Amino acid sequence: MALVERSLLGPGPSNTYPEATAGLAAPLLGHLDPEFLALLDETGSRLRTVWGTQNLRTLPLSGTGSIGMEAAFVNFVRPGDVVVVAVNGLFGERMCDVASRYGAEVVRVDHSWGDPVDIQRVLDAHPEPSLVAAVHAETSTGARSDIAGLGAALRARDERTLLLVDCVTSIGGEHIDLDAWNVDIAYAGTQKCLGVPPGLAPFTVSERAWQRRVDKPTTWYLDLGLIGNYVTGGSSGGRAYHHTAPTAMVASLHAALGRVLDEGMESVVERHRAAGEALQSGLQEMGLSLFAAEGHRLHQLTSVWVPDGVESADVRKRLLNEYGIEIGSGAGQFANSVWRIGLMGHNARLDRVEMLLGALRSVLRR
Amino acid sequence: MALVERSLLGPGPSNTYPEATAGLAAPLLGHLDPEFLALLDETGSRLRTVWGTQNLRTLPLSGTGSIGMEAAFVNFVRPGDVVVVAVNGLFGERMCDVASRYGAEVVRVDHSWGDPVDIQRVLDAHPEPSLVAAVHAETSTGARSDIAGLGAALRARDERTLLLVDCVTSIGGEHIDLDAWNVDIAYAGTQKCLGVPPGLAPFTVSERAWQRRVDKPTTWYLDLGLIGNYVTGGSSGGRAYHHTAPTAMVASLHAALGRVLDEGMESVVERHRAAGEALQSGLQEMGLSLFAAEGHRLHQLTSVWVPDGVESADVRKRLLNEYGIEIGSGAGQFANSVWRIGLMGHNARLDRVEMLLGALRSVLRR
Repeated sequence: MALVERSLLGPGPSNTYPEATAGLAAPLLGHLDPEFLALLDETGSRLRTVWGTQNLRTLPLSGTGSIGMEAAFVNFVRPGDVVVVAVNGLFGERMCDVASRYGAEVVRVDHSWGDPVDIQRVLDAHPEPSLVAAVHAETSTGARSDIAGLGAALRARDERTLLLVDCVTSIGGEHIDLDAWNVDIAYAGTQKCLGVPPGLAPFTVSERAWQRRVDKPTTWYLDLGLIGNYVTGGSSGGRAYHHTAPTAMVASLHAALGRVLDEGMESVVERHRAAGEALQSGLQEMGLSLFAAEGHRLHQLTSVWVPDGVESADVRKRLLNEYGIEIGSGAGQFANSVWRIGLMGHNARLDRVEMLLGALRSVLRR
Repeated sequence: MALVERSLLGPGPSNTYPEATAGLAAPLLGHLDPEFLALLDETGSRLRTVWGTQNLRTLPLSGTGSIGMEAAFVNFVRPGDVVVVAVNGLFGERMCDVASRYGAEVVRVDHSWGDPVDIQRVLDAHPEPSLVAAVHAETSTGARSDIAGLGAALRARDERTLLLVDCVTSIGGEHIDLDAWNVDIAYAGTQKCLGVPPGLAPFTVSERAWQRRVDKPTTWYLDLGLIGNYVTGGSSGGRAYHHTAPTAMVASLHAALGRVLDEGMESVVERHRAAGEALQSGLQEMGLSLFAAEGHRLHQLTSVWVPDGVESADVRKRLLNEYGIEIGSGAGQFANSVWRIGLMGHNARLDRVEMLLGALRSVLRR
């Protein structure tokens, strides 16, 4: 059966960096091999650099990005805890669902989809929540929120509230400075701007959040206390086996992070900016309207209204079948009225922009 | 940095089938691409063949083998349910931990490690449990239990009790016939006899178990009702996005299963038998004693006592550093007194047997 090759220009996964593919296909190591543990340690260190944090507990969890969200709530929410969630898209919605499954008293702060998080409304939602959760780059809408501002405002008010941030679509594609931004808990995915296949959830926890984690969460698989003994060593200094780490995926992430850091985060961010702006200009020149609020648009993921009279699914199908290009539909109520176009990681390149614009122009013309 | 190549002859991961590596490195597909959904469907169908089941819900979960155990308990145990667990090694122990986190009233049936499960003692443990759980091939001890006998005995007694089986180390290495054996829920890993890197947990559920699943489990990530809408289609027939499936890992599993089925399960099982018996004979000829109870020894994973006066860790380190061969220590209280040697998947070959025996002989001689 012939292999099919796609240009993955949807909301993720994106095409992988060549280094990530090489990492996947490298000879497999065992999860207790000293060579692998060194590679895992270096992966943690590279994640710290990309995320701008000194957090000791910085590691890839063994599941796709969503497992990061689950790990965040199951390890840091106790029944009855007040959790304020800024909802400005699908992933904020999902946070409410996950937090409530673990017994949180969820206080939603609803926004129009496509808008950034309104910091004052989040502050006003509750005087002393145990946790505030927000999404940095909303994959469902293409809008970026000001996490630095949110973190500063929260910390200015009190020392107690923990700040939890979803970095799934921002990591590796834009500037992030978790420590300076006062973020306590963050998770991400590998399949967007990091240019690695889906299958790992980078995760990081500040020391002050670590001290407040749930001692024995309902989950065994995502019990950070147990995982911590493998990743950073236990109280005795030994690295106790927890579960078999997905060693090939970790090697892939390690390699992609090396590629990103060799290029330099500043250059990587600039590459995403240049590609995203070229795409957004091109779409507007074609007469299309962008969905996310102006001034808050992601470069790595562009949301655009489907033109009147155009059948969304038909265009996506033709891009896929005639050009091998995958773009995404809108999320939720915008499934048929919005497209999402990603230029993430290895795809944050001008050649991809021209390819997509040309193909879209051709399909819309006919 | 030079890549390191190992012979992975421990309890897993094992060296991958070449087809699995090719699957990993193939051009990445999106999780909603029709080509990927067809590949996922075929993966389910291949898993059914390897497992001997007609279960519609047969799918790879997005995590390592342990996530299968967690999914089994979180989706099928309600607080207060009586769960009988046959404990004859580390993974039975872990089942007790996981089940109790979800509120089960756990009834343990303890065995000596290395022994198979005693069916009568399991039956006698409780007259009407909601679930009985056992491990088919105990990775921690190298002992095989008679799941066919257990399933038949349970079904002869009542129609209500569900049977949950851990197939992590048996799948792809020995004969399994879940439907004939009356198994309702089973999970496995990819990194043992299937010869795929760690990162997926094959999972299957019978129709009668499906009808009794927990409606809204505490977990979002492992909520089988939600995952089912993506894998088998929802009530409307559509395949709703749940989380981003680890598409590269699924492609790898698909390719390895194809390899295994092309060779034929009968031949694969025979290959594991021949390699395991050759290893066990060779070890005994060297004067070593096998750990697991005679007549119940796995072929794919051999446990052997460390000879008197030999430092276990020193031998393992020398095998690793001088020969590039990884073998495993014992588990739990046998950490320093037992070795575990795996001949799984691509490693179930006579050349690996000779290599290991020769290296071990050399190291023990000095």
